[in-house]
Amino acid sequence: MGESRVGEFGFIDQIKSRFDVPAGIFGIGDDCAVLPAGDEDWLVSTDMLLEGVHFLRSASSAEDVGWKTAAVNLSDVAAMGGTPKATFLSVGFPKDAQGTWAERFIEGYAAISKIYQVPLLGGDTTSSLRDIALNVGVLGTCPRGTALYRSGARVGDTIFVTGALGDSAGGLQAILKNLERTPLVQQLVERHLRPMPRVKEGMALRETGCVGAMMDISDGIASDLRHILKASGVGAEVYLDQLPISTELKTVCQEQGWDLYELAAGGGEDFELLFTAPADLVNRVDFPIFPIGKIVAGQGVKWQLNGNDYTLKTIGYQHF
Amino acid sequence: MGESRVGEFGFIDQIKSRFDVPAGIFGIGDDCAVLPAGDEDWLVSTDMLLEGVHFLRSASSAEDVGWKTAAVNLSDVAAMGGTPKATFLSVGFPKDAQGTWAERFIEGYAAISKIYQVPLLGGDTTSSLRDIALNVGVLGTCPRGTALYRSGARVGDTIFVTGALGDSAGGLQAILKNLERTPLVQQLVERHLRPMPRVKEGMALRETGCVGAMMDISDGIASDLRHILKASGVGAEVYLDQLPISTELKTVCQEQGWDLYELAAGGGEDFELLFTAPADLVNRVDFPIFPIGKIVAGQGVKWQLNGNDYTLKTIGYQHF
Repeated sequence: MGESRVGEFGFIDQIKSRFDVPAGIFGIGDDCAVLPAGDEDWLVSTDMLLEGVHFLRSASSAEDVGWKTAAVNLSDVAAMGGTPKATFLSVGFPKDAQGTWAERFIEGYAAISKIYQVPLLGGDTTSSLRDIALNVGVLGTCPRGTALYRSGARVGDTIFVTGALGDSAGGLQAILKNLERTPLVQQLVERHLRPMPRVKEGMALRETGCVGAMMDISDGIASDLRHILKASGVGAEVYLDQLPISTELKTVCQEQGWDLYELAAGGGEDFELLFTAPADLVNRVDFPIFPIGKIVAGQGVKWQLNGNDYTLKTIGYQHF
Repeated sequence: MGESRVGEFGFIDQIKSRFDVPAGIFGIGDDCAVLPAGDEDWLVSTDMLLEGVHFLRSASSAEDVGWKTAAVNLSDVAAMGGTPKATFLSVGFPKDAQGTWAERFIEGYAAISKIYQVPLLGGDTTSSLRDIALNVGVLGTCPRGTALYRSGARVGDTIFVTGALGDSAGGLQAILKNLERTPLVQQLVERHLRPMPRVKEGMALRETGCVGAMMDISDGIASDLRHILKASGVGAEVYLDQLPISTELKTVCQEQGWDLYELAAGGGEDFELLFTAPADLVNRVDFPIFPIGKIVAGQGVKWQLNGNDYTLKTIGYQHF
């Protein structure tokens, strides 16, 4: 089951209790469901994006919404170490979005799909009463038995991320607060509106054969890491001073008086990968990965800053 | 691409022009996309159902909406002759639907899933601003190369359906006009709210090896048959007097002064199967199938009633 970004209201537990999952299949509880098919595992995920909840027509261009709608789903496949093979798009457009907005939406959706070479193979189109409703389903594959789950973290593993944290949350703040779009601010906004899912990195990490747990960062590590810890039955120490943070974000945080660590650890939608592996993995991949902590016995996260315990206010991820 | 029940506004053509479909894969244009996987073909379809467009909370119980949301997707797999293997459910619920409504919705969804033995393997849950948004994705399978497409109709084939037409449309009229729920009216309403997709029949028809084209009846045969004709490059004659019509519908139409043939040919959501095959197939299956016409050279449908040409007003399918 994809991230429940706005609130589950206990619904997922109700669902789990009502459905049996056949043997050999992984259902609800990770970035994708996993179904065996011949020599491969098929990875399936789906995400719904709703106007007024996940985006505002006044704050995002139609192209940006199209881009991000595809991106979040490709990221779910990346999170399992899979190769995305196809997407399926359902759109519900009110009358005032059925012309230009719809066209520009599909332009953004097609642009990112082309970069990742993923065809759109089906979907549904309908009118909606008032608000735009979007849903994407994604199909990916990986060799049988190689998908990376949230449950694979082991005590002693190092915790890594694939790139800078907090940029997307900074960009969202800039949009919400209507900041002047200096070049630095604009870069954060771009990271929020046009995330690049780590598909190649996810596949390469799977191929190393030594990654324990993996997921994508959609709600912020403060929230997402807990999923790995819970699924794996372990705890973690995270060193805030080791979080990779862009100079853009540092500068804008200073200028605006924003709390850097709250944004980097509590802010969502960076769509970097969060994973656990032996510390020396850093020498065995040809792209940057950043150690941010370690897996320990116990449960929950102990946050540290420069050797001292630190309490995150952790606003969690803020939607519109 | 699933049926575009409310209006495509040219969107599907835009999509088709922007995406290449890889060789060996069938994308947009039938009830399911078809992707080879080992010895099987995987069938994928998705449908979006929106409050105020596809259902009203005042007219359908939450259980009924849950049932139908699953049913329309299972029917898409049945339409290809496939076996449904899993569904994926995205829900966007406004605050006032997050308690009891959501629970009762999943009860109806689980009830039909249990009958057809299809597990729910994932999805997404989110809040929505005002209206309920639902999306289901379905995965099915069939032996490699055996899926039944809309494009397989041949001149000389007989056109069949698997059951009574127009009951669902009659039930919808009864709901809209707030008819007294006599036992006969109630049966039509049930057919509208709780359709039974023809999954077993679809599989059995595929296994006969002599079905040409097949699809499910979601918009009414007047509309749906055109898809088969267009995809197959053929025309059809349909004999309205041969349409299977329930005694319930006949009686209620007489009582209410409704036009029986408009409902039976123009009314949607019966979710019976519409298919073409040699006339003698009727002796080779162990469930009722009803010949309603034949495939001829040319294009379009020629409607006949008792040997005379007939012009359907064909309101097409009416949503709320």
